[in-house]
Amino acid sequence: MAHQKTQRADLTPFLAPKSVAIVGLSRSALDDAVSVLTSLRDFGYGGRVYVINPSMGRVPERNVYPNLADVPEMPDLAVVSVARHLVPAVMRDCAAKGIRAAIVITQGFGDSDAEGARLQAEMLEIAQGAGIRIIGPNTIGVANALARFTSSFIEIHPDTAPVGQVAQSGLFMMGHHLINNEPGGFCTTIDLGNACDVSLVDVIEHFAAEPAVRVIQCHVERIDQGQEFLAAAERIGKQKPIVVLKAGRTQAGQAAVASHTGAAAGENQVYTAAFRRAGVVAVTGAEELRLVSKAFVTYPPPRGRRVAIMTFSGGGAVLAIDVLDSAGLSLAALSPATRAALEPLFPDWLAVENPVDCWIPLARDMHANYPRILEALLQDPGVDAVICIYCSYKLPKYAAYDCSSHLRAMAKKYPAKPILGWTYGLDVAGFTREVERDGTVMVFPTLDGLARSLASLAGWGEFRAAPMRTLSAPLPADAGSVRKALGAATAKGTTYLFAEALDILAAYGFSVAPWRLARNPDDLARAARELSFPLCLKVVSADIVHKSDAGGIRLGLCDSGQLGAADRDLRAEVARRVPGARIDGVLVQEMAPKGFEVMLGARRDPGFGPCVVMGAGGIYTEILDDYAFRLAPLVADEARAMIGETRIARLLAGARGGAAADVEGLVEALRRLSQLVTEHPQIREIDLNPLFVGTRGAVVADARIIL
Amino acid sequence: MAHQKTQRADLTPFLAPKSVAIVGLSRSALDDAVSVLTSLRDFGYGGRVYVINPSMGRVPERNVYPNLADVPEMPDLAVVSVARHLVPAVMRDCAAKGIRAAIVITQGFGDSDAEGARLQAEMLEIAQGAGIRIIGPNTIGVANALARFTSSFIEIHPDTAPVGQVAQSGLFMMGHHLINNEPGGFCTTIDLGNACDVSLVDVIEHFAAEPAVRVIQCHVERIDQGQEFLAAAERIGKQKPIVVLKAGRTQAGQAAVASHTGAAAGENQVYTAAFRRAGVVAVTGAEELRLVSKAFVTYPPPRGRRVAIMTFSGGGAVLAIDVLDSAGLSLAALSPATRAALEPLFPDWLAVENPVDCWIPLARDMHANYPRILEALLQDPGVDAVICIYCSYKLPKYAAYDCSSHLRAMAKKYPAKPILGWTYGLDVAGFTREVERDGTVMVFPTLDGLARSLASLAGWGEFRAAPMRTLSAPLPADAGSVRKALGAATAKGTTYLFAEALDILAAYGFSVAPWRLARNPDDLARAARELSFPLCLKVVSADIVHKSDAGGIRLGLCDSGQLGAADRDLRAEVARRVPGARIDGVLVQEMAPKGFEVMLGARRDPGFGPCVVMGAGGIYTEILDDYAFRLAPLVADEARAMIGETRIARLLAGARGGAAADVEGLVEALRRLSQLVTEHPQIREIDLNPLFVGTRGAVVADARIIL
Repeated sequence: MAHQKTQRADLTPFLAPKSVAIVGLSRSALDDAVSVLTSLRDFGYGGRVYVINPSMGRVPERNVYPNLADVPEMPDLAVVSVARHLVPAVMRDCAAKGIRAAIVITQGFGDSDAEGARLQAEMLEIAQGAGIRIIGPNTIGVANALARFTSSFIEIHPDTAPVGQVAQSGLFMMGHHLINNEPGGFCTTIDLGNACDVSLVDVIEHFAAEPAVRVIQCHVERIDQGQEFLAAAERIGKQKPIVVLKAGRTQAGQAAVASHTGAAAGENQVYTAAFRRAGVVAVTGAEELRLVSKAFVTYPPPRGRRVAIMTFSGGGAVLAIDVLDSAGLSLAALSPATRAALEPLFPDWLAVENPVDCWIPLARDMHANYPRILEALLQDPGVDAVICIYCSYKLPKYAAYDCSSHLRAMAKKYPAKPILGWTYGLDVAGFTREVERDGTVMVFPTLDGLARSLASLAGWGEFRAAPMRTLSAPLPADAGSVRKALGAATAKGTTYLFAEALDILAAYGFSVAPWRLARNPDDLARAARELSFPLCLKVVSADIVHKSDAGGIRLGLCDSGQLGAADRDLRAEVARRVPGARIDGVLVQEMAPKGFEVMLGARRDPGFGPCVVMGAGGIYTEILDDYAFRLAPLVADEARAMIGETRIARLLAGARGGAAADVEGLVEALRRLSQLVTEHPQIREIDLNPLFVGTRGAVVADARIIL
Repeated sequence: MAHQKTQRADLTPFLAPKSVAIVGLSRSALDDAVSVLTSLRDFGYGGRVYVINPSMGRVPERNVYPNLADVPEMPDLAVVSVARHLVPAVMRDCAAKGIRAAIVITQGFGDSDAEGARLQAEMLEIAQGAGIRIIGPNTIGVANALARFTSSFIEIHPDTAPVGQVAQSGLFMMGHHLINNEPGGFCTTIDLGNACDVSLVDVIEHFAAEPAVRVIQCHVERIDQGQEFLAAAERIGKQKPIVVLKAGRTQAGQAAVASHTGAAAGENQVYTAAFRRAGVVAVTGAEELRLVSKAFVTYPPPRGRRVAIMTFSGGGAVLAIDVLDSAGLSLAALSPATRAALEPLFPDWLAVENPVDCWIPLARDMHANYPRILEALLQDPGVDAVICIYCSYKLPKYAAYDCSSHLRAMAKKYPAKPILGWTYGLDVAGFTREVERDGTVMVFPTLDGLARSLASLAGWGEFRAAPMRTLSAPLPADAGSVRKALGAATAKGTTYLFAEALDILAAYGFSVAPWRLARNPDDLARAARELSFPLCLKVVSADIVHKSDAGGIRLGLCDSGQLGAADRDLRAEVARRVPGARIDGVLVQEMAPKGFEVMLGARRDPGFGPCVVMGAGGIYTEILDDYAFRLAPLVADEARAMIGETRIARLLAGARGGAAADVEGLVEALRRLSQLVTEHPQIREIDLNPLFVGTRGAVVADARIIL
């Protein structure tokens, strides 16, 4: 996929064309109840529509032309749905006509076989030569209620919700406003399809500049231009929340992405780290995407995460508390003033606390007590948001229990504090319509969805309030010698560095356990003289990346005799386990001082660039799945946060009476690693495992670099 | 809460009374649009209703009596809603009248203050003396569409779904059929409230015997009679699925349970282990409770977990795959026959694989190709269930794309393979009604809910097919000496055993690293002679449970000189760190042979009895949160499954070229521990940490028992 251009596409001809050529509409579709013509009519499109079909003659009353060339004006947009092998020719016709925007509906390009990939490249080359921008192929195109234009042959819910949607699948455009048959939930939507030209970044830049869009909603399966996306999202996300559903999360899911869009997806962790860096609001499913987007339209972000719960049902309160924790929200402690205001309403045997189980005062007089209790909670300075759980009765019979007007009135009076509803009962749908009438309160279909939405609001509020990240000055390092070493390795065609990796780390200020390379018994004897016992041996071989798997490590050697025996034994075992491996020598190394075993690593993602990882070291690395992950370059606070995310952080802090490790030393090591991988793009992957973190400083015992 | 009785309550008078006395209906409620009288009328109750209110005179035309004694017959049931201090007197009136069943609506008993708890005990004592069974207090009571009876003053959705519901909150009775305004989803429901008498077990036994109930749906906040529940659930659950929402999951949630029902909830892990043992279908939220129950009404359990996906949208397929993994389902591999059947329908550039993205054949001819593709998938012997993702168009305009009749027809033809729907589009609600018309296919509001429901069906199928668990013969053990040791400790008032714990474990066949107790330098010298160096020292003190925190451990002592110095140093440090601790001596112990450090433990839950836990040992125990948990007694397969659940299982199996540990030896150790804790109820808690699991056998290095 070619994405050399950085010039942003102007999306106006796609979203609000004054005239459009429909290329490839079949004769039968002309009178079909379901076609782009009926969609445009139902959507209220006011522009000029031309139908191009070479197999038909000129049909003046239906604006049908056999060729694009015959159309009496230059249309703003072509919507192309001819068979895939005809698309390059159509693109040439567009170029000849001077058209600058094309939506290619047709499937079977980069999403299918080699011939499809070839056709896609051919089409793109023609378009780029003529200055034509393309949405698609393999797309339904766009729908834009702001200009009443759509390229979809299926009807789209027209809606003016201030949400701009961009997706890699038509599913979202068709509407994922499940169950309730709500309106679409967006005013403008773009299905990127294979995204051969117009990209996710083009679209979010467009939405950033569009005043009718307050929330940007994205469905992505992969992001090709990771660093462009990051830069745009971090800047735009400070103004408008960017809510992203990244599909293809699991391993199995990623396989399907590959077959769906024609390329493998990046790793989950890279996306997570990228989204965190850019302040993107990440969600995990279609329904959550809908709910969170709607929540951003309905509410401002709360000032904090402290939640009061007001409920008709004690059982409902327990269910609500169950979801707060996992969403990262907390139960507010009510102030003495709030308790004092509420206590007169409750029997003396009922302690007033959060959650406020208010059935008794409500059964006495709902219309007097509901607003009184809710207002007391909203006035509490320790409460950032209120969850209201209530029963949805059949109206008007149960008008005495109808709290909907109070919810709306309080939302108007206290707009800074979200009031979030969850309900059960006889007429949930009807009651929900009443509660949501002003667009200031939402009723959530699940408590889990409610809590996640509130947490998303709070998280974005925190991102928006945080200052822009500023990088600190680089740490002193001998970048020149590293460049030389990497250059030498590249010249030799070496892709795996071991002994050289230790030198490179030393050049970047890491403490490395002292070592010598021994190619023969003389070297070994010299190493024994120059280093302090106990020593260890590690095989040096360009053919062996996993030294312990190959039997290429010997630890705890206490004298020259042991050293010699271990050297012979190691060489024999490696030769047996990895037949044919070239053994360049052994690395003789002082046993590292005691400390906690930690693993640091970095790798370069093709989309998002260098990333840094930290986790438990030694034998625990792979089984514990206890990693923290960030994009490089890292600032110190990010390094500290990474360490804090891992379980082994508790060990480092000195659990169970042990001494605390030098966490700031580890922070520095992470920054040095981040700097190393950022400054030297040849490094594809680097592992420090184990790094021993002691009470003062951290010492590298083993490392490898992959170029 | 008194639960001495094991005699099951007959629920007929509660659920299908021929006559009922409403005690405490206010004068105003007599003519209110919302009261139990209107609910009974609307529900179609055909029995006799008496209203008791001492503040009113006799009102013959409304069947009002000042006293229960005046009622001209003995009612089957009393529904009591007088103020709490009057409830004991009403219970006496019921006893005098000969009434045998009472629903106590009133709040403010065990759910509130000390006076409430006292009143609850008083009421219960009167009832038990007179043979009256009570539902409640603090309840809305019951609703039973089978006999058209309810005690609720709020209208209940009448429904004949074959689901029996029992809850600890009225919320569920009021209906948690969210969003869609579906019918209630149950034919009979009981709100247990404080459950002072009629219990969860009484209700599930009733539902087990009720032919109109096929699925038992439970909301519980705590289960008091854990072992009774287990026995009943395991037996009944083989016939009818028992779906349970356990509320109060998180720590914060548990605090709310305490204030809501008047007692602390058991630990999450104990419930998880208990539910697993009993084959209970556990769900995590109200919406999942509804969906899973409905799924059990709609579908038989599938034969396996292999899923085919048939979709209008490639994007939908990726979303579906994302949820399969985490639910424990897998993507089916299509057979060559299935591929051969499907390939003619697809263009040659599209590879036919699962998920089957079938937009192209459907766009050509939906009504020919939808049933053909779906049937090919259903006929594939490697497919256990099919997820259908489709767009819900507005009918009749889009009748050419309406797949609902095909879904119903295929569900009828292949009843053993669930067809599960997920949809998006213009008329989800209308299309869903069409698809669900026969009750053979469900449309799920989220893919996540779909996958969890299917996994629940599959899990119950596996439980139902598994043979009843049979315990193997106990391993040889010296139970007599352990009884004696525990008896002696109890007699001395000791509650924490350390050296004795090692003896007790040895009596149950555990290998324990050889040790001696040294109270003085002479003992120490003798120990040095009798044991093999290297040795370690551990403080022995009834005041010190966490020895390492107290500085009470010295490792790797290589000769008598080091031993003596370490002994003095240890005593001094312990005295400094834990001032006033009585030091009974030091335990001198051989350093255990190398192996993987594992932690085994057991504790006795007040409700469910003894439970066994296994996890990573040593310093990693508490930080890794890598535990497996089961109820005792354990069978060998359960022990194996426990080990397999932990992350350290990969280390034990010999990760990264290491030797495999003796997993069967660990299985035996788990069985011995299970047997020990089951046979000796005085043991409240026992910890073996670390247990070194080597290549042959496992050796206990440290242990403690709490009585």
